[in-house]
Amino acid sequence: MSESEKGRLAVVGLGPGATAWCTPEAAERVRAATDLVGYGPYLRQIGPLADDQEAHPFPNRKEAERAVFALDLAASGRDVAVVSSGDPGIFAMATAVVEELHRESASARWAEVEVTIIPGVTAATAAAARIGAPLGHDLCLISLSDVLKPWEVIERRVRAAAMADFVIALYNPASRHRPWQLQRALDLIAEHRSAETPVVEAHDVGRPEETISTLTLGHVDPATVDMGTVLLVGSSATRQFTDAAGRSWVYTPRRYPTSLSDPGS
Amino acid sequence: MSESEKGRLAVVGLGPGATAWCTPEAAERVRAATDLVGYGPYLRQIGPLADDQEAHPFPNRKEAERAVFALDLAASGRDVAVVSSGDPGIFAMATAVVEELHRESASARWAEVEVTIIPGVTAATAAAARIGAPLGHDLCLISLSDVLKPWEVIERRVRAAAMADFVIALYNPASRHRPWQLQRALDLIAEHRSAETPVVEAHDVGRPEETISTLTLGHVDPATVDMGTVLLVGSSATRQFTDAAGRSWVYTPRRYPTSLSDPGS
Repeated sequence: MSESEKGRLAVVGLGPGATAWCTPEAAERVRAATDLVGYGPYLRQIGPLADDQEAHPFPNRKEAERAVFALDLAASGRDVAVVSSGDPGIFAMATAVVEELHRESASARWAEVEVTIIPGVTAATAAAARIGAPLGHDLCLISLSDVLKPWEVIERRVRAAAMADFVIALYNPASRHRPWQLQRALDLIAEHRSAETPVVEAHDVGRPEETISTLTLGHVDPATVDMGTVLLVGSSATRQFTDAAGRSWVYTPRRYPTSLSDPGS
Repeated sequence: MSESEKGRLAVVGLGPGATAWCTPEAAERVRAATDLVGYGPYLRQIGPLADDQEAHPFPNRKEAERAVFALDLAASGRDVAVVSSGDPGIFAMATAVVEELHRESASARWAEVEVTIIPGVTAATAAAARIGAPLGHDLCLISLSDVLKPWEVIERRVRAAAMADFVIALYNPASRHRPWQLQRALDLIAEHRSAETPVVEAHDVGRPEETISTLTLGHVDPATVDMGTVLLVGSSATRQFTDAAGRSWVYTPRRYPTSLSDPGS
């Protein structure tokens, strides 16, 4: 693409890890891009670039800087893909890019850039698929990161989700800088739910090092959880069983509350 | 595949409509299947089958019957794909299949069947991508269908989600048989949120007839909503703006509550 042409920017959801979960639309935009912008590990998720493609790795956080850099690059006529793991609209880069468009909406700085958001499979549904159907009913997705929102807001949401008996998917459950938040969130949930409630702990879903464990709410060990983990905390109805072939399953029944015609009741 | 071989069953998420959003893993299982089982419109979403593939269309509801039929077919040695739009674990067929596995977990009926759930892009994130990043913060997915759960449970969850200021994605918002539930849910949300709150109304996302509209909470018309609609109701922080090129965007900022350094405040 010559510098005189109009540039474009796509915020691309690669899906969680596996290329088998990267949509054709996402793969096509990555293939077409002259420039790939992203957190280093997501750029590595793409695999080797073509000779005429340039990678622009960014450190974690720094999302606003990454968005401005990518928009400016597109405005200079380049075909830019900002890559995120999972879905870019779920605790990922789409918001940062749209925030910057808003900030500059009165100016012409990026008026010529065609901006597209490309959805992807999000980590919670991919992790759920590995173990059955734990998300088979009403569901909350909550990020436990209190970097950009006060912890009180997170507590309020976790409490509300627990009281109303939602299945709860916890994103960004812990990091080196946030060591105590996960246990506190689990304690809040446990005020409304049995210690036997199934919890699915998914690490690096879709990646070679993937592990999926089924625990109970009373036995989650926050020390085993990091930024590559998504936790699916069951509702009061969520069940775990082993099938005739010895395989373990977790699901949340379609009926609520579970009735006599349900299996296992 | 000969009848003497072990059969297998995949519950496949096709993504919402567009083949560009169907993952390679999902497409591969559909291609390999000898038998495709699903609600008629989802089978049509696949396109023409190969000569040696058989389609088994089912009416809507009847999920349990569909699951048993598919598992029995796989147990007879066939390679079966149960197809769902979106993600099969979000208000779709994965739960029905795992429920049946649980019901028969003490028997050998399906012990030889290899069962896999294949995740897909879910409608809420695809709809969000079309308009920006409305789901850019903590989020609830709620099905308004009270066919399998009491309406009181849905009200409790909608209230909790509204009070704790979640963005709310409403699936199955209305049907011919459920005419009043959506307005009631919107009224409950409006007790905690301004009438100016942005609402994204997405019809048939990813399909040729797709429409995406941005409304406000005070101006949703339930008469325009059907089973092919997903509604994204913003939180108190969700914003709508028009960029320098005249394009409309909706997003939920990463910071909460929004601070002075945010755009537009």
